[in-house]
Amino acid sequence: MKAIAYHAPGDFRYEDVPDPKLLADTDVLVRVTRTAICGSDLHLWHGFPAPDVGFAVGHEFVGVVEEAGPGVRSVRRGDRVLTSCTSGCGLCTSCRGGLWSGCSVTTAAGSQNVFGFSLALPGGQAEAVRVPFADANLFRIPAGLDDEHALFLTDILPTGYMGAEWAEVGPGDTVVVFGCGPVGSFAQRASQLRGAARVIAVDLDEGRLTRARARGCEAVNSSTTDLGAYVLERTHGRGADAVIEAVGRPELLLRAFEIARAGGRIASIGVVTAPVELPYMQLFLKNLTLRTGLVNPQRFIPALLPLIESGRLDPTEIITHRLPLARGVHGYEIFESHAEDVLKVVLQP
Amino acid sequence: MKAIAYHAPGDFRYEDVPDPKLLADTDVLVRVTRTAICGSDLHLWHGFPAPDVGFAVGHEFVGVVEEAGPGVRSVRRGDRVLTSCTSGCGLCTSCRGGLWSGCSVTTAAGSQNVFGFSLALPGGQAEAVRVPFADANLFRIPAGLDDEHALFLTDILPTGYMGAEWAEVGPGDTVVVFGCGPVGSFAQRASQLRGAARVIAVDLDEGRLTRARARGCEAVNSSTTDLGAYVLERTHGRGADAVIEAVGRPELLLRAFEIARAGGRIASIGVVTAPVELPYMQLFLKNLTLRTGLVNPQRFIPALLPLIESGRLDPTEIITHRLPLARGVHGYEIFESHAEDVLKVVLQP
Amino acid sequence: MKAIAYHAPGDFRYEDVPDPKLLADTDVLVRVTRTAICGSDLHLWHGFPAPDVGFAVGHEFVGVVEEAGPGVRSVRRGDRVLTSCTSGCGLCTSCRGGLWSGCSVTTAAGSQNVFGFSLALPGGQAEAVRVPFADANLFRIPAGLDDEHALFLTDILPTGYMGAEWAEVGPGDTVVVFGCGPVGSFAQRASQLRGAARVIAVDLDEGRLTRARARGCEAVNSSTTDLGAYVLERTHGRGADAVIEAVGRPELLLRAFEIARAGGRIASIGVVTAPVELPYMQLFLKNLTLRTGLVNPQRFIPALLPLIESGRLDPTEIITHRLPLARGVHGYEIFESHAEDVLKVVLQP
Amino acid sequence: MKAIAYHAPGDFRYEDVPDPKLLADTDVLVRVTRTAICGSDLHLWHGFPAPDVGFAVGHEFVGVVEEAGPGVRSVRRGDRVLTSCTSGCGLCTSCRGGLWSGCSVTTAAGSQNVFGFSLALPGGQAEAVRVPFADANLFRIPAGLDDEHALFLTDILPTGYMGAEWAEVGPGDTVVVFGCGPVGSFAQRASQLRGAARVIAVDLDEGRLTRARARGCEAVNSSTTDLGAYVLERTHGRGADAVIEAVGRPELLLRAFEIARAGGRIASIGVVTAPVELPYMQLFLKNLTLRTGLVNPQRFIPALLPLIESGRLDPTEIITHRLPLARGVHGYEIFESHAEDVLKVVLQP
Repeated sequence: MKAIAYHAPGDFRYEDVPDPKLLADTDVLVRVTRTAICGSDLHLWHGFPAPDVGFAVGHEFVGVVEEAGPGVRSVRRGDRVLTSCTSGCGLCTSCRGGLWSGCSVTTAAGSQNVFGFSLALPGGQAEAVRVPFADANLFRIPAGLDDEHALFLTDILPTGYMGAEWAEVGPGDTVVVFGCGPVGSFAQRASQLRGAARVIAVDLDEGRLTRARARGCEAVNSSTTDLGAYVLERTHGRGADAVIEAVGRPELLLRAFEIARAGGRIASIGVVTAPVELPYMQLFLKNLTLRTGLVNPQRFIPALLPLIESGRLDPTEIITHRLPLARGVHGYEIFESHAEDVLKVVLQP
Repeated sequence: MKAIAYHAPGDFRYEDVPDPKLLADTDVLVRVTRTAICGSDLHLWHGFPAPDVGFAVGHEFVGVVEEAGPGVRSVRRGDRVLTSCTSGCGLCTSCRGGLWSGCSVTTAAGSQNVFGFSLALPGGQAEAVRVPFADANLFRIPAGLDDEHALFLTDILPTGYMGAEWAEVGPGDTVVVFGCGPVGSFAQRASQLRGAARVIAVDLDEGRLTRARARGCEAVNSSTTDLGAYVLERTHGRGADAVIEAVGRPELLLRAFEIARAGGRIASIGVVTAPVELPYMQLFLKNLTLRTGLVNPQRFIPALLPLIESGRLDPTEIITHRLPLARGVHGYEIFESHAEDVLKVVLQP
Repeated sequence: MKAIAYHAPGDFRYEDVPDPKLLADTDVLVRVTRTAICGSDLHLWHGFPAPDVGFAVGHEFVGVVEEAGPGVRSVRRGDRVLTSCTSGCGLCTSCRGGLWSGCSVTTAAGSQNVFGFSLALPGGQAEAVRVPFADANLFRIPAGLDDEHALFLTDILPTGYMGAEWAEVGPGDTVVVFGCGPVGSFAQRASQLRGAARVIAVDLDEGRLTRARARGCEAVNSSTTDLGAYVLERTHGRGADAVIEAVGRPELLLRAFEIARAGGRIASIGVVTAPVELPYMQLFLKNLTLRTGLVNPQRFIPALLPLIESGRLDPTEIITHRLPLARGVHGYEIFESHAEDVLKVVLQP
Repeated sequence: MKAIAYHAPGDFRYEDVPDPKLLADTDVLVRVTRTAICGSDLHLWHGFPAPDVGFAVGHEFVGVVEEAGPGVRSVRRGDRVLTSCTSGCGLCTSCRGGLWSGCSVTTAAGSQNVFGFSLALPGGQAEAVRVPFADANLFRIPAGLDDEHALFLTDILPTGYMGAEWAEVGPGDTVVVFGCGPVGSFAQRASQLRGAARVIAVDLDEGRLTRARARGCEAVNSSTTDLGAYVLERTHGRGADAVIEAVGRPELLLRAFEIARAGGRIASIGVVTAPVELPYMQLFLKNLTLRTGLVNPQRFIPALLPLIESGRLDPTEIITHRLPLARGVHGYEIFESHAEDVLKVVLQP
């Protein structure tokens, strides 16, 4: 079959890869109908070490069940499904406790349990993909919901929502979100859904700031506005109740500690790949909470799916580009370079 | 001074009553600028027993501090303020625990701690009112917020919000709200603020249902639509996650138990004055939670005030009538009879 | 095989019943090593309607896996296991949401999903039992823990714990527990585990009160002590923070509303089979919360199991009688009549 | 009056200092009956910068109200009282929100709001002390509770409890507490109170480890035992659910990240005075939560006081030395040098 295959940093190719096959009774084979390029895919593009070459990349995908192993109970051939990007076994203590990302089976021996980072678990920017432990990781797409509306439940919509939950966003809060990319956009929407009085969206890209403003945020270009002063002015001098870092830069994390109020909560959902020198006394004197970690979409899908079904949340609002899978490499180039006012690229096999 | 004074059920009069005076160092005298008629005031109108006659009624009011006792620290003469309808002492175990309605000082010896139900604590449908324990019960209205926007923080906006909190409304929930009156309307808004996927507003009055639809609810006239079937259809056969009863009728409480899903939560914020025969086995087999009680606006004002300041919540949307205080008795007649498509009557002294 | 079989109210027989067999790929056959008689079993004994006759009764049992269907992943032949009394499918929305008792598969068409109430799902007071959806309902007993210590995780230990959770028992609370039977005893232990300052155990049976005292409770015989006055004296006049009704009598539920403080929480874990006339105004004026429902042991086992393993909790403390399965009917007679200072009867096949 | 006065690092003197006087209507003068030396006092001893010299040190003290300003409502002359170490105004947004340590009034202009760190707010290792905003910061000691049992409610008992709360310790958890000093000891007790299955107490001092063992902990000397291996063995290979750092050393905080399980919670209640290089990817891959900050005893006293009253918690268990105030400097020397098997030094004026 055709797929976007990893070869080296910056060298992804649309080419033939081996067809996926069922390897266990609990596997399902999904024929992909829509898949998307995620900021995390860019880590590979930029040199995050991969153990193999030639595997299909991508962990955001939806599709139709082509074949289901005899041990699969929750879906069957023909069902339209979405997949969590994190594939837990569903039965270990970690999975039962809501942490599929810490699954003791699928992360054993150092292997990945996110799709699209190795030959062991190839990804979904492909015509088809094998999903292990399907009962734990697949969800049926309800009739009446098209594939594109379900697509971002696989990763970035739960990731953005998780940011708002970790920052304990609640009614009346002033929330600062660093980053107006795909994840930041959803963190902003999630903050609104949880009752924030103000969502202050921060970015350097005027196009993205305009989009943030259109979704009801106050948008601040931190290169031209004094963000600290802005936040104090909006909060009667107190500081932000919650800050969500959705970019992944250490200096923004430090900025978060500064603009948070005493008792504030910081959620770090952008992946920071370097150590961070923590200003401990600042955290101490301000009674701050810091949370970070991998997303577990399975936890959030039951709450987010009805919001999409009812129309209160439209995740397709972030899609700027739709390309055939064959042009996926071009999609990477656009996304990586922020060209063409790109926000999110969706591929269609 | 002039006030709407209680004489007997159905007999309220706009007349002279004694001027309020400071009785303790912690009292404040508030000159009223806006006051409103609450559904609870109708209990007196309909015969709820009062211990006295001749007192000013009303517990929803905002105004300006005319005089503050020497023990008052948080406000001073000239401050624009709103008052919680429930006046706790602020220091007893109950008040410190967030339950001013159970204050062991202000409810001692059977006395009321809600304004406007006795000579001991006259109400705010008057030119002025004495507020005891001002530091515990008064809040300054921020500059930039007019009095009318702050008015409903005194009771019904927190009451509606409390309903959504007690019913544990969260992202993705389907919520049924019985009643589209002032409190029900705010319970609907609060459910949206807390992330409900669907708010199903139930009433018999088409005008009120139209208003509910305008605020984003699905509106159901339960006299013409099979509510149970409607809820099942909207929830893939499960039932409502949360039900808020904002009318105060036993039969609606029983209906709530029926339409709630297994594990559902019922908040009863309409005052039911008769005992209710509880279908215990239904609650047991469905794992239901039931919560009821008096509102404590002090708990909710810190979260709700910023939502009004930022414009995300506009409580004035429910106002249908603005009358001078002198025409307050007419306001009662309209409100009581549901005439003139009334939703909320605001009086101006 | 041999089992205690239901024939009619008061007519249970130790006799041959058909051997259980696997009916589905996800079934497991458990050879029972220990089983216990539960207060809920007495409902059948006293006339709770059963749809069939001749089925094995009992829902508290542990044992060894004799045979596992090919779709079972979490246990295998030879594993020592305990079973939740409530058998959900594990994959429906209700089960995924933590409410196996509301499973849309196993409760479909009015059928029971608790073991031992019908021929459809025979119980564990038998030599062997079929457990459906084993991955959702079976738990391995850790090495180092004997069967008897695990036995009560199947129902009454989680039930007692659930009472403390539903009553939101937290550090410093004064908790009243009605009933010092098996479930009440565990509700008392659970209240202590959650940090209660005082657990006031109420019963009429002096032997049971003595046992409650030995486990660190204040024990009150409500026939000789004025419980209301006692609670007020212990709480500086406030009332109980939390009340757990573990007997199942309407009049005790009403008593709970009386002795709870304003803002108190009532958990009803004793099964009340009649409707209850709810004193609505009392609940309203006191801001009470009422919770009731079926237990879902699956939710509580992960927290309770380590407490037993570490020795902080010894559930065997309630066992007063150990009998061979052949003498199980005698066990019922003792338990039903409160003879021989019985608290809990364990049977051994 | 006599007091322990600060002069320079290592130079504390028992000497005459000016008598405290009421400075505001809301002040109270407390005659001290018991006071204690806290680990935080050692920060001054070791060179933490002080703005003045000659002030009485100490923030843990109880006593009797000598004089109360006319604006004080909750206590009066003769009442036995305990004081929160953190003195908030009680009315600002931060105080109303439960964060007296972030009080916008008492921390204004950089001033301290902890007793005993400046001339602006002298401490309680003295014959008497002025307590500002008494209604917000003083609590009456119930009849039947002696002063010594109430003493540690002023700081270290709430601090230890806060650690357990921040680490979200719940029933069944395995908790590691670094440090068996006064605060660590109370963090261990609090973890037990919240239902921990195992509390693993870590220290280098065998005497303190023996005491930890006596209070029901598993005690580990990390210089002779491989703590990581120990924790994995006790948790079926998963790691600690919660870790509380009660020493204040960066390397222990890093150790905490290592031994926590995926999804674990870290509470840092020992004061780390240097920046900490945060191993960000470890926190990310393990989904960790980190909380730190100043204690707010006012939040915890309502829960902890009844536990002491009922006898479930005996805070005096940590007292090893009782000295007259006149020998307070000797107390510092003992405490600082870990001499005489010291755990906690109480002084009596």
